[in-house]
Amino acid sequence: MKVAVYPGSFDPFTLGHADVIERSAKLVDKLIVAVLNNSAKKSFFTLDERLIHIKEMIKNIPNAEAGAFSGLLVDFARLCGANIIIRGLRALTDFEYEFQMALTNKSMADEIDTIFLATNIQHLYLSSSIVKEVVAYGGNVDNMVPPFIKSELMRKLALLSSAKEDNRGFGR
Amino acid sequence: MKVAVYPGSFDPFTLGHADVIERSAKLVDKLIVAVLNNSAKKSFFTLDERLIHIKEMIKNIPNAEAGAFSGLLVDFARLCGANIIIRGLRALTDFEYEFQMALTNKSMADEIDTIFLATNIQHLYLSSSIVKEVVAYGGNVDNMVPPFIKSELMRKLALLSSAKEDNRGFGR
Amino acid sequence: MKVAVYPGSFDPFTLGHADVIERSAKLVDKLIVAVLNNSAKKSFFTLDERLIHIKEMIKNIPNAEAGAFSGLLVDFARLCGANIIIRGLRALTDFEYEFQMALTNKSMADEIDTIFLATNIQHLYLSSSIVKEVVAYGGNVDNMVPPFIKSELMRKLALLSSAKEDNRGFGR
Amino acid sequence: MKVAVYPGSFDPFTLGHADVIERSAKLVDKLIVAVLNNSAKKSFFTLDERLIHIKEMIKNIPNAEAGAFSGLLVDFARLCGANIIIRGLRALTDFEYEFQMALTNKSMADEIDTIFLATNIQHLYLSSSIVKEVVAYGGNVDNMVPPFIKSELMRKLALLSSAKEDNRGFGR
Amino acid sequence: MKVAVYPGSFDPFTLGHADVIERSAKLVDKLIVAVLNNSAKKSFFTLDERLIHIKEMIKNIPNAEAGAFSGLLVDFARLCGANIIIRGLRALTDFEYEFQMALTNKSMADEIDTIFLATNIQHLYLSSSIVKEVVAYGGNVDNMVPPFIKSELMRKLALLSSAKEDNRGFGR
Amino acid sequence: MKVAVYPGSFDPFTLGHADVIERSAKLVDKLIVAVLNNSAKKSFFTLDERLIHIKEMIKNIPNAEAGAFSGLLVDFARLCGANIIIRGLRALTDFEYEFQMALTNKSMADEIDTIFLATNIQHLYLSSSIVKEVVAYGGNVDNMVPPFIKSELMRKLALLSSAKEDNRGFGR
Repeated sequence: MKVAVYPGSFDPFTLGHADVIERSAKLVDKLIVAVLNNSAKKSFFTLDERLIHIKEMIKNIPNAEAGAFSGLLVDFARLCGANIIIRGLRALTDFEYEFQMALTNKSMADEIDTIFLATNIQHLYLSSSIVKEVVAYGGNVDNMVPPFIKSELMRKLALLSSAKEDNRGFGR
Repeated sequence: MKVAVYPGSFDPFTLGHADVIERSAKLVDKLIVAVLNNSAKKSFFTLDERLIHIKEMIKNIPNAEAGAFSGLLVDFARLCGANIIIRGLRALTDFEYEFQMALTNKSMADEIDTIFLATNIQHLYLSSSIVKEVVAYGGNVDNMVPPFIKSELMRKLALLSSAKEDNRGFGR
Repeated sequence: MKVAVYPGSFDPFTLGHADVIERSAKLVDKLIVAVLNNSAKKSFFTLDERLIHIKEMIKNIPNAEAGAFSGLLVDFARLCGANIIIRGLRALTDFEYEFQMALTNKSMADEIDTIFLATNIQHLYLSSSIVKEVVAYGGNVDNMVPPFIKSELMRKLALLSSAKEDNRGFGR
Repeated sequence: MKVAVYPGSFDPFTLGHADVIERSAKLVDKLIVAVLNNSAKKSFFTLDERLIHIKEMIKNIPNAEAGAFSGLLVDFARLCGANIIIRGLRALTDFEYEFQMALTNKSMADEIDTIFLATNIQHLYLSSSIVKEVVAYGGNVDNMVPPFIKSELMRKLALLSSAKEDNRGFGR
Repeated sequence: MKVAVYPGSFDPFTLGHADVIERSAKLVDKLIVAVLNNSAKKSFFTLDERLIHIKEMIKNIPNAEAGAFSGLLVDFARLCGANIIIRGLRALTDFEYEFQMALTNKSMADEIDTIFLATNIQHLYLSSSIVKEVVAYGGNVDNMVPPFIKSELMRKLALLSSAKEDNRGFGR
Repeated sequence: MKVAVYPGSFDPFTLGHADVIERSAKLVDKLIVAVLNNSAKKSFFTLDERLIHIKEMIKNIPNAEAGAFSGLLVDFARLCGANIIIRGLRALTDFEYEFQMALTNKSMADEIDTIFLATNIQHLYLSSSIVKEVVAYGGNVDNMVPPFIKSELMRKLALLSSAKEDNRGFGR
């Protein structure tokens, strides 16, 4: 059985992620969409929120599951019995970094192989950071994220901004 | 009328910026040199200082103006009635990022187009960060910034260093 | 007055060319779409055919004209009184070559500047050579060239193939 | 059933090809290693020789088959009932070209997806052209091709060189 | 006499560094392996530890010495009477940055030249940051660093982790 | 003793070549500037002409010599007792190809190392092919080649053009 892990930060989940998931689910028997829990990097959505997002986004893909990991990706892949790592490739800068990770992972776990999918052309220059930047200034992200994620972004932004006001209210 | 915005951090203004401004002013009717006021990123010069620098540097270019913006560039461009965004291209890493921004901006504001100028060969590897690094260690920046900016860098460095000494004087 | 030259082989004219022409015509007073007559390189369409194609494609753009040149681009630009060269940028390999040409042209004609437009994302990986390869094997080029060019490709292919058959008829 | 095509010129078959085949055969149910019969490009080995090479090299991989095609890859893939195209990625220049091909193929056949494998680090800068160049001047290709291919290269070189001598013998 | 400086962070020293040092020591009369003391960037090993590591790693290379510097590299090179700067090149992203630094250094000190060595293929995607990431999660770094550095990484990790526990013990 | 080979086509010799030679002659005891005699590729200048050009250009560099080779570079380097290969790096496309060659050469001759020099910024986008293209159309190559090479280009062009006229005179 081919089991694959598709790791990422998914902060937030974009249409590019959706495209990679949909296509790779067709290539393997089981696909684990796994959120990297990187404690060193501040995220916009919490780990729990991101897991909820992924579960919602894959609810119609029977052979996909959501998961989370910290530590080495290859350790997590082994734990899941996965022999494939899936990565989307967009632009050149991706390529360099992804190559480095693929070769490093291979040197640590030779039985696990990384396969790359070329990102759909519409999402070639789409990234989670761009989404966060655009949404923060009130830009339109309809072409960047699924509707559910858009409403989540709005909800969270409203929350963060009212939290700021509360603080201000108490004299800061 | 062709109105163009040339956005940047200008922290500090370099000879590369001067070259792009001089050349693009010839291509359009009105050129707005606009400082990005990015509150998330600590700058060397304050927004006001950078506006003063730009005004000084463009004083002999009749169709150029200085401005500042925060938020989305396309919103600022619309506000100014600009239909063109100007960007200088230097090395490869620029290219990737600039492409991403140009395509993202186009997806948000189809009526505004980004045009790129190839940086003059003398300034191909010149960046504001390099200037700050070189000047911090007493290196010579004569080939990197206009004389006025050089003296501004010196003034600010002296100020920062005397501030440190003052702090030290009070026991820190 | 801003006069610009948009040079190329246009063998064949693609939707990417159409996009660059439409956008750059808005940026300048007069746009000359100029076919490079490169005798050293065998073309699919003759120079005359390519001029007819361009004229057809720009018939609704009042400030655009078709032209042809051999020799140095900067000499042709000077002849036309053009002070701008327009180039579309697609992928990385373009970038390197285009930079080299822009800097070489600048060293030969300092008064002429090259400006680059980022190709529309749908056409990011579209090239005239890809079109010729796809069409030669009966692939669908609807998303690659305008309908008029598609019928021209079909006409020419039929012509070339009947010419081959004629030859074969005479014992080859 | 996942059926994949791994297309190439295989002129000659290298250790890099062997690595991609071995790894991708594990990912799919059936792998078709397909020689592109490009009549426009002169090859060192004939199509038949290359098919023999591939058959020899995959004889121990039960789910791999050799094939040949001319025309569009997506047409051949459809003919074979393949839904996956496999490509190895080496250096940057590969990346650009491969992306272009993957996106073009997707635009012509949306149901077929291209997946990329990162070439094993030992073969990162290995190409069939390098092999031909090195072998032509008597260099050692032990680290570049399997032993069987090496002897085939020697055999063919001897043949070509004796053919030249024969011609010379008759006064040329 | 050719004196060369090989500058770096060496945080930690990798097999890639060892390879560059061994090869460049053969090219020059004297090689100074110089740790950049960058106070702005938090390092894993202290400056003193890194100097000890380098001294240990070069003890069998008679014409190599360890050193440290802060400030501009060209000032340090001049101080040492060095006329050559040595840098290893790995991937593309290196290339851009290294070119920028080489050209900037040349503009500040024309008598000092930078020479680049292509990293050994086994270490092409190896970096100090990758090493730190892998080791932090208990991955195997045998193919990445010399044994001495591996034990140093273990020692330091144990130290840092027991420090954390101590803190925790006191109620934090 | 450090002996280095600087191989190239030198068709024609450019200011970029002159810069690399001058700088690398300072780094080694003996520098052999070696013309690749590639019979498969038609050159503008004959091998003999190119050797004369190089001898003229290095006449003031006491430790430089001119040479020519066909076959593998590493074989020629061994023949000369050279342990260093010198290459200039300009743009990105160079980088990929040069890396490939350096790693291939290392795999064939481990005792010979390739070192790269960053091309002087003025010559970053200068290539022999650009020179030939510009000169063929009467463009100015003063910033591209030394005066002696310029007059050689003129002499050869006149020769080739009068040869054509002679042919025409006899009815072709």
